Amino acid sequence: MKEDVTRLLEGVRDGSVSVEDALHQLKTKPFHDLGYAKIDTHRALRQGVGEVIYGAGKSAEQITGIMSAMLSEGQTRILITRIPLEKAQEIQKLHEITYYPEARMGILGGMPEVSGKGTIVVATGGTSDVPVAEEAALTAQFLGNDVKRLYDVGVAGLHRTLAHLDDIVDANVIIAIAGMEGALASVLGGLAECPVIAVPTSVGYGASFGGISALLSMLNSCASGISVVNIDNGFGAAYQASLINHR
Amino acid sequence: MKEDVTRLLEGVRDGSVSVEDALHQLKTKPFHDLGYAKIDTHRALRQGVGEVIYGAGKSAEQITGIMSAMLSEGQTRILITRIPLEKAQEIQKLHEITYYPEARMGILGGMPEVSGKGTIVVATGGTSDVPVAEEAALTAQFLGNDVKRLYDVGVAGLHRTLAHLDDIVDANVIIAIAGMEGALASVLGGLAECPVIAVPTSVGYGASFGGISALLSMLNSCASGISVVNIDNGFGAAYQASLINHR
Amino acid sequence: MKEDVTRLLEGVRDGSVSVEDALHQLKTKPFHDLGYAKIDTHRALRQGVGEVIYGAGKSAEQITGIMSAMLSEGQTRILITRIPLEKAQEIQKLHEITYYPEARMGILGGMPEVSGKGTIVVATGGTSDVPVAEEAALTAQFLGNDVKRLYDVGVAGLHRTLAHLDDIVDANVIIAIAGMEGALASVLGGLAECPVIAVPTSVGYGASFGGISALLSMLNSCASGISVVNIDNGFGAAYQASLINHR
Amino acid sequence: MKEDVTRLLEGVRDGSVSVEDALHQLKTKPFHDLGYAKIDTHRALRQGVGEVIYGAGKSAEQITGIMSAMLSEGQTRILITRIPLEKAQEIQKLHEITYYPEARMGILGGMPEVSGKGTIVVATGGTSDVPVAEEAALTAQFLGNDVKRLYDVGVAGLHRTLAHLDDIVDANVIIAIAGMEGALASVLGGLAECPVIAVPTSVGYGASFGGISALLSMLNSCASGISVVNIDNGFGAAYQASLINHR
Amino acid sequence: MKEDVTRLLEGVRDGSVSVEDALHQLKTKPFHDLGYAKIDTHRALRQGVGEVIYGAGKSAEQITGIMSAMLSEGQTRILITRIPLEKAQEIQKLHEITYYPEARMGILGGMPEVSGKGTIVVATGGTSDVPVAEEAALTAQFLGNDVKRLYDVGVAGLHRTLAHLDDIVDANVIIAIAGMEGALASVLGGLAECPVIAVPTSVGYGASFGGISALLSMLNSCASGISVVNIDNGFGAAYQASLINHR
Amino acid sequence: MKEDVTRLLEGVRDGSVSVEDALHQLKTKPFHDLGYAKIDTHRALRQGVGEVIYGAGKSAEQITGIMSAMLSEGQTRILITRIPLEKAQEIQKLHEITYYPEARMGILGGMPEVSGKGTIVVATGGTSDVPVAEEAALTAQFLGNDVKRLYDVGVAGLHRTLAHLDDIVDANVIIAIAGMEGALASVLGGLAECPVIAVPTSVGYGASFGGISALLSMLNSCASGISVVNIDNGFGAAYQASLINHR
Amino acid sequence: MKEDVTRLLEGVRDGSVSVEDALHQLKTKPFHDLGYAKIDTHRALRQGVGEVIYGAGKSAEQITGIMSAMLSEGQTRILITRIPLEKAQEIQKLHEITYYPEARMGILGGMPEVSGKGTIVVATGGTSDVPVAEEAALTAQFLGNDVKRLYDVGVAGLHRTLAHLDDIVDANVIIAIAGMEGALASVLGGLAECPVIAVPTSVGYGASFGGISALLSMLNSCASGISVVNIDNGFGAAYQASLINHR
Amino acid sequence: MKEDVTRLLEGVRDGSVSVEDALHQLKTKPFHDLGYAKIDTHRALRQGVGEVIYGAGKSAEQITGIMSAMLSEGQTRILITRIPLEKAQEIQKLHEITYYPEARMGILGGMPEVSGKGTIVVATGGTSDVPVAEEAALTAQFLGNDVKRLYDVGVAGLHRTLAHLDDIVDANVIIAIAGMEGALASVLGGLAECPVIAVPTSVGYGASFGGISALLSMLNSCASGISVVNIDNGFGAAYQASLINHR
Repeated sequence: MKEDVTRLLEGVRDGSVSVEDALHQLKTKPFHDLGYAKIDTHRALRQGVGEVIYGAGKSAEQITGIMSAMLSEGQTRILITRIPLEKAQEIQKLHEITYYPEARMGILGGMPEVSGKGTIVVATGGTSDVPVAEEAALTAQFLGNDVKRLYDVGVAGLHRTLAHLDDIVDANVIIAIAGMEGALASVLGGLAECPVIAVPTSVGYGASFGGISALLSMLNSCASGISVVNIDNGFGAAYQASLINHR
Repeated sequence: MKEDVTRLLEGVRDGSVSVEDALHQLKTKPFHDLGYAKIDTHRALRQGVGEVIYGAGKSAEQITGIMSAMLSEGQTRILITRIPLEKAQEIQKLHEITYYPEARMGILGGMPEVSGKGTIVVATGGTSDVPVAEEAALTAQFLGNDVKRLYDVGVAGLHRTLAHLDDIVDANVIIAIAGMEGALASVLGGLAECPVIAVPTSVGYGASFGGISALLSMLNSCASGISVVNIDNGFGAAYQASLINHR
Repeated sequence: MKEDVTRLLEGVRDGSVSVEDALHQLKTKPFHDLGYAKIDTHRALRQGVGEVIYGAGKSAEQITGIMSAMLSEGQTRILITRIPLEKAQEIQKLHEITYYPEARMGILGGMPEVSGKGTIVVATGGTSDVPVAEEAALTAQFLGNDVKRLYDVGVAGLHRTLAHLDDIVDANVIIAIAGMEGALASVLGGLAECPVIAVPTSVGYGASFGGISALLSMLNSCASGISVVNIDNGFGAAYQASLINHR
Repeated sequence: MKEDVTRLLEGVRDGSVSVEDALHQLKTKPFHDLGYAKIDTHRALRQGVGEVIYGAGKSAEQITGIMSAMLSEGQTRILITRIPLEKAQEIQKLHEITYYPEARMGILGGMPEVSGKGTIVVATGGTSDVPVAEEAALTAQFLGNDVKRLYDVGVAGLHRTLAHLDDIVDANVIIAIAGMEGALASVLGGLAECPVIAVPTSVGYGASFGGISALLSMLNSCASGISVVNIDNGFGAAYQASLINHR
Repeated sequence: MKEDVTRLLEGVRDGSVSVEDALHQLKTKPFHDLGYAKIDTHRALRQGVGEVIYGAGKSAEQITGIMSAMLSEGQTRILITRIPLEKAQEIQKLHEITYYPEARMGILGGMPEVSGKGTIVVATGGTSDVPVAEEAALTAQFLGNDVKRLYDVGVAGLHRTLAHLDDIVDANVIIAIAGMEGALASVLGGLAECPVIAVPTSVGYGASFGGISALLSMLNSCASGISVVNIDNGFGAAYQASLINHR
Repeated sequence: MKEDVTRLLEGVRDGSVSVEDALHQLKTKPFHDLGYAKIDTHRALRQGVGEVIYGAGKSAEQITGIMSAMLSEGQTRILITRIPLEKAQEIQKLHEITYYPEARMGILGGMPEVSGKGTIVVATGGTSDVPVAEEAALTAQFLGNDVKRLYDVGVAGLHRTLAHLDDIVDANVIIAIAGMEGALASVLGGLAECPVIAVPTSVGYGASFGGISALLSMLNSCASGISVVNIDNGFGAAYQASLINHR
Repeated sequence: MKEDVTRLLEGVRDGSVSVEDALHQLKTKPFHDLGYAKIDTHRALRQGVGEVIYGAGKSAEQITGIMSAMLSEGQTRILITRIPLEKAQEIQKLHEITYYPEARMGILGGMPEVSGKGTIVVATGGTSDVPVAEEAALTAQFLGNDVKRLYDVGVAGLHRTLAHLDDIVDANVIIAIAGMEGALASVLGGLAECPVIAVPTSVGYGASFGGISALLSMLNSCASGISVVNIDNGFGAAYQASLINHR
Repeated sequence: MKEDVTRLLEGVRDGSVSVEDALHQLKTKPFHDLGYAKIDTHRALRQGVGEVIYGAGKSAEQITGIMSAMLSEGQTRILITRIPLEKAQEIQKLHEITYYPEARMGILGGMPEVSGKGTIVVATGGTSDVPVAEEAALTAQFLGNDVKRLYDVGVAGLHRTLAHLDDIVDANVIIAIAGMEGALASVLGGLAECPVIAVPTSVGYGASFGGISALLSMLNSCASGISVVNIDNGFGAAYQASLINHR
């Protein structure tokens, strides 16, 4: 954005851009306005990644509209998160997407080459955490990362965790996904030498309070090198993990 | 209590107890009334343990009054919990108690013989949890148990935990004390084969919310065989552990 | 687990186990990996109990897969918790389980001989708490305990509670199950001389907040010898009660 | 208030009161304006009770100013709640009040004759609840009621509660005061045949959360005939109990 | 209950009751045990009111079973709360009850004569609070009280409240029912000279948090003479109001 | 209302109104009583706006009844909020209303002339906030205001926000609508020179807690000139914005 | 800010400003950087008001440093909020400020002429709310508004509220300040015809939870035209009220 | 840790290590046991960083004891967090540490060479957030990173934020520190192309609830690439930022 402003100012000085035009460009250029959504058409270039549509709270019509606008701007790979099967089927009538039911994601244009430096380990405490883990794993792959899945390695059966010590120590980033007491993040944080991004899940009942228990547990981890994202936010964890893996 | 009623009824049938007296006894017998407190003078016999005074919210005068009443009823060992040094010093003017500053407890009459079957392990996640742990350990000893202290064995340094695998596996009951994320209970619960009583502590800051984080974490533990007591309630954990250890 | 490590090390010294193999065994041996789940195939032997599958959040396919793996490892009795009727019927197509609709549990291989020392009393405050109570009672039976059910003995009708004074005093462990104000645990804790495990239930409305009211009430009980498990966690209470009853 | 409006309207019709005056009276008559407080000088007559000053958040100057205004309007008995000793001593320089340190209340003009129909029982779960109980008991006496104090009758020692069955059954209103798990209200509510007003107290630690635990417990009581006032609100409970006792 | 014990003891003394029988009677007499429920068959006599069945969480079978037991004990009027239409229709196959859909209550045996001293006013803040108000009003009538309904008199339109000043001032007890900000209780409490029982309702959205907002507002009322029951607990408010109205 | 009282009092003085009639008028005049609702028939005149019916929690019958009463009093424009399509269709059988599905509102009598001074900007953080925004925008138009919609201008894409700097600076009132982190209000509050009314929305998942996150964020805004309404309360924001725009 | 950008761009086009300079100005001009604070030196001109320093969390040194920078930029009137007496006295050693102890504010340069259109009414429910009210009233005066104070007009004594009907109806904006149940805002919102800004206060105890009760009550008000600011935020309410009063 | 096990096993195979010794080493080697603390003496080597002591909840004696043990193991640089001035002065009697009062940290052995790849930007919303920011900045420097401080760049004055666009875009990691509404993280997350670690602070009052408001806001950020640490946890943010900056 900074460069855009510089270039615009240079144009004004050269006389190649009028003041009115410059003001107008500042206001209208960087996105495509659909009324219900402003599409950031420069972001893919600027940030070097495919574009993502957060599907929750958007109708199939709105999503396909946004996709069409993106495609018309030259975007070739699109990730759509948090869409149920029915909505995906609606979208598939217009655009060719692969739908991943467990992760509730759709992908247009397939997975890219691996561009990240190391491996992103995606670990879960239990079987019920797998949907969130798949959202994270597929997002990380979509963003060009090598991914290693370690599912059901919760600390109540510590030998299951320790059996994967190799993968844990070799990881470049770890995404630790757990509901209930969320202790997985602390144990992995103590064993690993890389950043750990913790994802609390809404799995559980009673005093798990829809993920609050795991969230608080992870925020209070005694292990260093852990940060936390929103409950069930597999996408967000993978996005940051990818940024780290591309440093 | 049941036996008391039976005996009373037999007295009434025999004519040795009048109906009025029986009613009167039911109402006045089982405790000593000091106005501000009713002292349960039969409980020591009935439950086979020394008597305990919960010191918080009671003045030194009230505590010494209760102690005097207990002593006059034949009690020989008394435990007083949650009293600061100054209150203990006030009490020491009248009654000979040993004061434990870290646990903030006073004990009259010393520790009894060990009567419990096995060892009660008292483990903490960190150094800051030690005051609660000492409250638990001393209470357990006061109630006739062999106690093994394992302090600062939190799971963020897993090798510290695993180094005590012997003690953990050999325990008859474990008291797992931790603040912050409270993951110690889950890991011990997964390793041990005995009941684990978890004590969340108010140690921590920010999103530990005075122990809520650890409390929720422990209530949601994926490991089986864990139950939980109130935040910082070392006494309560030790009391139940002793009951279990005397089964 | 400790013994396994010792034995493995001895094998390495003897030359009967190579270093590579030892490392490999440490990582792969103790469980059966189904991808979505790691099955702890040694636990039944190690802990002397039948195996349990936590059914919530697992599909019928995943559950039957886990059961098959367990059976192939020699397991003969399996308990599956928190499965609705439909899922149970799916499972019954492959495995012969008895389904208990009120407790929402399935059991393969029937109940074992009683091996516990005394009686586990399962008491509820009201009629609406019975499903959680049945989860507890059946689990306790599955784990080899003699169980006595006392339902609808809430303290708002104190004579109903007191009428069972015999059972309360004779119990080796009590599981006190109540929603709303959860006062049952305190009253039983005051009357009994054995450990009481309290289970808050999500029964109630308004300010019961899905069991929070009962949970807090039980954590704050003035009676000694009480610990608490998660809301509606009849299984967890019974598991710990059984550990205590087998001391 | 209704009567005042009627009388004013009649005066307007009679011509004895001008419209302007009527409007003026409606606005200025019913209280005495001190700038920082409006004193309701007719309330004592209208509601037949002495006047009360809520002392918290008011300076000694403000309190004595309000008292002077009340006395000048003919008030003879005044109750001041929630004032620490120092503030009471400041007030005593100007007005002759008796100070009750445990209840932190001051009373000018002494206690009235008993005018209520029956006895108000003030019961507490423990010794630490006594300050709130004294606020309730003294308020009830100030409002003309016969009061019976039953302190430290908590349900964890049920025989202490049952020993006072006479007083409980004979009460016209019961004020049940308890912190921690607040179970006293439910047990008394089940035994008594009169209205029970429950007062949660902030006594306790950890998961008592400053009285929230007791508050929720009391709001969820399974016993009928119970209502609840704010945490530590001994005054409010006594005020309503007095209204009931004067029906 | 006290009298029962006295009488029993007298029987023991006379020899007309053996000790074993006395113990047995203490344990089995006062209720009818259906396994899933203990029915208090003496309560109607003891407390002078018809019997109530809390319908939530009970099946139609359980309810009809309880009703049959009550009828066989001589009960003639029964109130069943919180049953949806379908459950009521199931019950109507066996027992003749009148169903009130708005209040979701069923009544067997009709309304009794008015036995209460004065009028119970049932007031609501809005139209959406009417279902809770009807639960209260019908319960009060079932317990023998004269009831006056004042619906939609919320304080945001103060003239609607003031228009009923007569009814408010003449009431013997007021039940103030409101959701959202719950200010109705404070305003009525300031105008009335009788006890006000406040019922928060779960009506509202957003920051009303299912009635918490109204509950807190009512607990914190500045007006004296107000106590509060659980969210949506029209029954409980009416039960206590009836006790007060029968003093 | 003040004027009404003055006029009534003058009538009483003149003898043109009897005291009884005056009292009667005070009580019965200002609204139309339907039993379940009191309709304020003078408010439109008094406050100069069309009348509004809060549709949630009211049946179609109740709504049409209220509408009929309003129409019979001369009301010509009516707004009904929070009604689903089905309820709107029921109402349309009796009254001619235009239904706005996204906003879930119905309007009878169409939009009025613009009477407000400036423009009310309605801005949203994302696409999912649009339903609340439409409730606000349509309400503002119904109350006579010029409205400018700026949707999907959230601060995570700051250039989208800044592109509308003109509209933001020129606004007379801004309604800032956002879920999740609610940062839009702070950024607009920092840029604008007019009052900003913030509306948190329940959009989001996990730790958004149904809008609590956005609500707290907006209440804590560091920018001056911001106030907040209830979660999802587009109507309330627009109502106040219109009051401000008509100053 | 928009104008600055336009002017800057025009300068670039004219050649009177180089591109480098323009970028530099965009980055460095609009504030004065003290390291620990960036002072917005153009804001007074831009927004036409005196400058405000939020004093909480700033040392006396930091505050005087900021004041000196402001004075050197030509600012003549400065308001400092939330400073205790001691900090004010420190500041007074360097700068001549008037300190208002109840409001805990300091003002340099005195109050300006009244520039607002109408009157801002500042009303409180009780005497304890006065400090917050004074913060609001003095801020409003500092921003050029005519202020009318109505203190202790809470709705539990409704005649006190109604006595000021004139002031309420004549106000151009009302700031309604109340703790505890916060009902004042709803009643004023129902009576007034102007915008009401509600300020919950942390006054109260127990279930007032430091102002949460009043905050929720105000957010849920049934009266239209009300918005809410943070707990105890008298300044924020007055700032917005002034913006409205200067429309 | 993995390597240690491998090496140990090889020793056992070679006969150079006995099985008993191997077991013993596994248990006792990796830390130094002080009773109240287990010091991880291999960690500095293993993880390549200086050692950190979390000072809160530890006495000066405990801290100096731990430091002595570390120094005896060859550690040369030690960071001690969260110690007040007095405790630092106690420590300085034994060990030569530099104390940073704003950050409340002590450092022994000085800062290391910069070893991280890029710049870590530490940004705060306001002046009051500086103490947490200094904890983060000094920690990052202690761990070998180049740090750029941007203080008081909160989004309510957006030009202050934008003026540092250069630093924001050039950062390798950003630590965004803010209390109150926490919007800084979202805005920086939208502008930056690197990972953003958000630190909520407990700065604020009222509905900021000790940092909960900022915490929730940051967890719900719409910007991608953001993760969050505990309230006021400047250390934890810097630790993870350093891990990322050393990838």
